[in-house]
Amino acid sequence: MTGIGLLPPTARVPGLSGERFVVHYAVSGDAIEARQKAEAVCLEQTVEFPADLLPAGDIAEHVVGCIERFEPAGEGGFEVAISYAVETAGDELPQLMNVVFGNTSIKPGVRVLRFELPERLLSRFRGPRFGQRGLRERVGVPERPLLMTALKPLGLSVEALAELAYRYARAGVDIVKDDHGLANQPIAPFEARVAACAAAVGRANAETGRRSLYVPHVIGPAPEVRARAVMAKAAGAGGLLLCPGLIGFDTMRSLADDDVLALPVVSHPAWYGSFVTSPENGMAHYALYGQLQRLAGADASIFPNVGGRFSFSAEECRAIAAGCSDAFGALAPAFPTPGGGMELGNVAAMRELYGSEVIYLLGGGLHRGSGSIDDTVARLIDAIA
Amino acid sequence: MTGIGLLPPTARVPGLSGERFVVHYAVSGDAIEARQKAEAVCLEQTVEFPADLLPAGDIAEHVVGCIERFEPAGEGGFEVAISYAVETAGDELPQLMNVVFGNTSIKPGVRVLRFELPERLLSRFRGPRFGQRGLRERVGVPERPLLMTALKPLGLSVEALAELAYRYARAGVDIVKDDHGLANQPIAPFEARVAACAAAVGRANAETGRRSLYVPHVIGPAPEVRARAVMAKAAGAGGLLLCPGLIGFDTMRSLADDDVLALPVVSHPAWYGSFVTSPENGMAHYALYGQLQRLAGADASIFPNVGGRFSFSAEECRAIAAGCSDAFGALAPAFPTPGGGMELGNVAAMRELYGSEVIYLLGGGLHRGSGSIDDTVARLIDAIA
Repeated sequence: MTGIGLLPPTARVPGLSGERFVVHYAVSGDAIEARQKAEAVCLEQTVEFPADLLPAGDIAEHVVGCIERFEPAGEGGFEVAISYAVETAGDELPQLMNVVFGNTSIKPGVRVLRFELPERLLSRFRGPRFGQRGLRERVGVPERPLLMTALKPLGLSVEALAELAYRYARAGVDIVKDDHGLANQPIAPFEARVAACAAAVGRANAETGRRSLYVPHVIGPAPEVRARAVMAKAAGAGGLLLCPGLIGFDTMRSLADDDVLALPVVSHPAWYGSFVTSPENGMAHYALYGQLQRLAGADASIFPNVGGRFSFSAEECRAIAAGCSDAFGALAPAFPTPGGGMELGNVAAMRELYGSEVIYLLGGGLHRGSGSIDDTVARLIDAIA
Repeated sequence: MTGIGLLPPTARVPGLSGERFVVHYAVSGDAIEARQKAEAVCLEQTVEFPADLLPAGDIAEHVVGCIERFEPAGEGGFEVAISYAVETAGDELPQLMNVVFGNTSIKPGVRVLRFELPERLLSRFRGPRFGQRGLRERVGVPERPLLMTALKPLGLSVEALAELAYRYARAGVDIVKDDHGLANQPIAPFEARVAACAAAVGRANAETGRRSLYVPHVIGPAPEVRARAVMAKAAGAGGLLLCPGLIGFDTMRSLADDDVLALPVVSHPAWYGSFVTSPENGMAHYALYGQLQRLAGADASIFPNVGGRFSFSAEECRAIAAGCSDAFGALAPAFPTPGGGMELGNVAAMRELYGSEVIYLLGGGLHRGSGSIDDTVARLIDAIA
């Protein structure tokens, strides 16, 4: 009998395949402290139970996480690889996230670096429906980096936003998205805005012969999100801008997987920035803005560019691009989509950082300068091409 | 003309009521740096646009956030109150969260302390359907703190979990919830588990005459979450355990507001711990585990107790209890639900910290000791009563 005798002394767990997935964590502290933290993670993320009170057998031996590797890392802490039985994640994204970082997210000094999922688990996720290649086909741009901009500022009327969308698309911007601050406010309600902007981009495309996409921001009460996405599709939207931090990562995944919608998904990083603002906690850029976005179906992952008004380093941006593109089972690569911090003067540096498989997102910055928007966009596309 | 002339020089925004809500932030840095950060927040959370390129008029004057107060705070930074037009939030929780902390979450050195919502905005949220009083009525315990426990460890069969649920309910635990690691794994699939545990608690109640609640963890693919909740209700569940970090805060709100379900909601903090692991970033405990949970409909908010295996201080726990209970429009108070770190020896200290409007959550700790579970629970209830 275990503890006060509520549990069987031994437990067999039928159906364990023996396959495990691995999460790499950075753990702070000296060797003793880090080892204790790592052992706590093994329990916390699975049984959430005192080790000495666990029934013997499969639970203690196979359900509890297992430290596979424990090595000193560069800056004073340790890198720890912990494996979990694939069955703990139950083939569902929210529960996979739960096992990766659920309770441990509340413990200081443990950071998720990356995860390795065996084919058995990865194959449960469709990943990006379009990926880099599919999105290129949609916009008809086979090789150069893509250009994206945002409709803003919040406060413009539906008509002003639509006019802006038209001007951008006419000028040759590949993807015209809503700012993520445009929701369903009375200032420019969702349905009217999406209809007007989709029509405006369609009109520009008819004139230019290009295939710019209008990508509205879909957000709202949970039970209405899909209906809004369907409405956007019917109105002619060319993709969906989604904030998984605000609507849930699995809501994004479900919209990406939705065969009625079948639209490219652009993921926006609003709300969960706290995962990266402290270097010892949260998740590494590679996992958060790369791997997790692909698991959740994003074809493009927006993040703050180095040199902009946020504080990401070039190394962190490079890691995001790798997380978006590295081999990850059969999952297609997503476009890293750095926002802000780019101007004509640093295009060469940006190309060196990101290569050509990138979407450059320029918002307010596109408004600065003296030429027309047509000239500005033409110069930008020349420079990045 | 503004910038390169894409925007009108002046913009009127019809329909602004003049009512504003206020978010209090802690901003790090000296006075100059903190002021710059605060001004950046005003733009970032609304127009996300360079101030010098904004059209004059309503957008610059009323849509952009406005610094209402800027004062030195205790530990080297500043406390800043910023107001936003209620229309920016558009009456929807995800967008309200977006305005409160969307992009700014990605900027180091800004922390949300609390928010003040005018009646016009607060009245859009039902808040906790049961609240402290309603939950007390459900379990038939008018005054003393409530006792909650969790079914675990993951790895137990449906039968073993149901037996545990029966034993806990018979012993007098008021609320028997699933561990948040129980999802829909093949080890103990959701539907079978919920049916068996609900029946087990019902059988115990029939024997004791008490009204213990079984509260299953509802998680899963976004399009299936509500159906699982409905299934749980039909099986006799007495509430829903939800992880808003994993399924989305507005998914929790929508389930809490759902009149078909009409079940108490217990909120679990998995996944978004990174909001509190760095004192300069994220959100304060008061706002995160208190106010936000009530806006999202939670009747009880679980968090790691001081003295447990996490690192919350007594002061942080007290702040959570205040955030759960302080006047907040017509929103009912929720139960602060500290988990872990409580034992017979510190019941007096816990009562001093939380008073009687609290749910104590004891999981693995209940298994430790020598007496029977009946004795253990009886002693605990005696002590807290």
